[in-house]
Amino acid sequence: MSPFIVVDLGGTQIRAARCRADGHMEARVTLPTQASEGPEAVLSRIREAIRQVWPASGQIAALGVAAPGPLDAKRGVVIFAPNLPGWENVPLRDHLADAFGVPTFVSNDANLAALGEHRYGAGQGVADMVYLTISTGIGGGIILNGKLFEGGQGLGGEVGHISVAADAQGSTCICGNPGCLEMMAAGPAIARAARAALEAGAASVLRERAAGDLTRITAREVAEAAQEGDELARRVFARAGFYIGVGLISIMYLLNPALFVIGGSVANAGDVLFDPIRETVRSHAPAIYWQATPIRPAALGDDVGLLGALALAMEA
Amino acid sequence: MSPFIVVDLGGTQIRAARCRADGHMEARVTLPTQASEGPEAVLSRIREAIRQVWPASGQIAALGVAAPGPLDAKRGVVIFAPNLPGWENVPLRDHLADAFGVPTFVSNDANLAALGEHRYGAGQGVADMVYLTISTGIGGGIILNGKLFEGGQGLGGEVGHISVAADAQGSTCICGNPGCLEMMAAGPAIARAARAALEAGAASVLRERAAGDLTRITAREVAEAAQEGDELARRVFARAGFYIGVGLISIMYLLNPALFVIGGSVANAGDVLFDPIRETVRSHAPAIYWQATPIRPAALGDDVGLLGALALAMEA
Repeated sequence: MSPFIVVDLGGTQIRAARCRADGHMEARVTLPTQASEGPEAVLSRIREAIRQVWPASGQIAALGVAAPGPLDAKRGVVIFAPNLPGWENVPLRDHLADAFGVPTFVSNDANLAALGEHRYGAGQGVADMVYLTISTGIGGGIILNGKLFEGGQGLGGEVGHISVAADAQGSTCICGNPGCLEMMAAGPAIARAARAALEAGAASVLRERAAGDLTRITAREVAEAAQEGDELARRVFARAGFYIGVGLISIMYLLNPALFVIGGSVANAGDVLFDPIRETVRSHAPAIYWQATPIRPAALGDDVGLLGALALAMEA
Repeated sequence: MSPFIVVDLGGTQIRAARCRADGHMEARVTLPTQASEGPEAVLSRIREAIRQVWPASGQIAALGVAAPGPLDAKRGVVIFAPNLPGWENVPLRDHLADAFGVPTFVSNDANLAALGEHRYGAGQGVADMVYLTISTGIGGGIILNGKLFEGGQGLGGEVGHISVAADAQGSTCICGNPGCLEMMAAGPAIARAARAALEAGAASVLRERAAGDLTRITAREVAEAAQEGDELARRVFARAGFYIGVGLISIMYLLNPALFVIGGSVANAGDVLFDPIRETVRSHAPAIYWQATPIRPAALGDDVGLLGALALAMEA
């Protein structure tokens, strides 16, 4: 069987790989996105990345692409992408299908990461699973009955924009929703909360590390301080974990999944984030909901988008 | 084809009917639940209601039952029911199947109401629909691809307990979740908000109607005052509508349904509730989400549980 080519289009990097159906990568390449140059230049670099992993045989089975959303997965159109300037209603699927003359499938990167974790990672064997990726934003995807669930127009699975704190002051997200999970618990929210506490005079190892410039404090520094036992940093992660836990409870009530999988750079903080998430779920939801629904870290790291795109192309 | 018998078990009334597959009711009966007498007495009255609508022919195709939840739909067991004292892990399905010797199917009343509205009411013809019933509590159900979606353990579709305001003071629900939709927007929340405003001195026609006893103010009185243009009452409904709208946005992001249907006694208030719900969704969510997702009043009134139980029994 011919190999597949898969692409993960991100705001910083374009990754591409030539894969076998079992997930083995025969070749891979990473190019800088240089998103500020606009859609035409980025599309040209996506084509270049694909050419670099094209097999000598000349034949591939299909092309699978993970792209930022909101994205119309049925038509393969990027509706807009906050970290790709100028990307509005870009018909990515048709563009690549025309350029390479192969079956091409495009879907939302977070939805595909869910699919990747389900097929090759932490979610293997489970019927219903919800995946969250927590980094600069919060994305996610929903697997129901073993299949990616995207909703009627392909706009579902946007776990990061469910609202958990509609009354929180100054919490209206770019999405328009007050108190959405992304505003309350993504990396920037964690950094903001730590900076605000430092400005208010809280004691923390973060103060000397900031060396007078609080803008140096990002979620990564807060995570490191929390892992070292810094009380302020742990409190900040506990608060983020609380909101994430409340979001998971809402999802449990709606979907009653068998598993949550959480990835993304902020989730790399580990226990300082997962402990308060689990504690919140256990203390605020009936046992019958959470007992059968573990909350696990993602397993695939940076390859999750590529492997999700592989599953999309193989199963389409 | 033999008729079906369907039952809707509520905290106040037990309804039963003999139905044809098209929804036509050949006979119906309503008995008082007298829930305080406990499970044995209530089970006996359910059997009595079924006997009263049993056909002279002696034959029925199946028995369908809508019961309060949380409920394990796979095993037909009522796990607990806040308005049925003593109902804990009651094997309702097996009890009735043993008593009548016919195929028996039991599911959550709110989930079945969703199914009823989808098959016979406001949701006919739509693939993905979310139903909410707003009265003393908030329940609901989810239809995906034309089928009732209940999640892996049959515990999904609990729309009323998603959290929309985790930071709201004193908002922790009996479910354990802070700021859940039911705590913020069901009938008692509406009554509480009106009473609190009256206690704080707000002007309103509700004050004279309370005649010195604010406990007389229920959601129904607030709805009537709002319909008459009373400003306090309209503000209270606007706030409830805001939280419901925020909840619908969360559901849109997760499930991207084609339709919302809202029923229940509080929804009978009409525009004073539906206007702020729609206004919230339109002002806080991207148009691509809400443009294709109308929010409609339920169509079946008090028969919704019976007709949902009919669909359950027919399709099982």
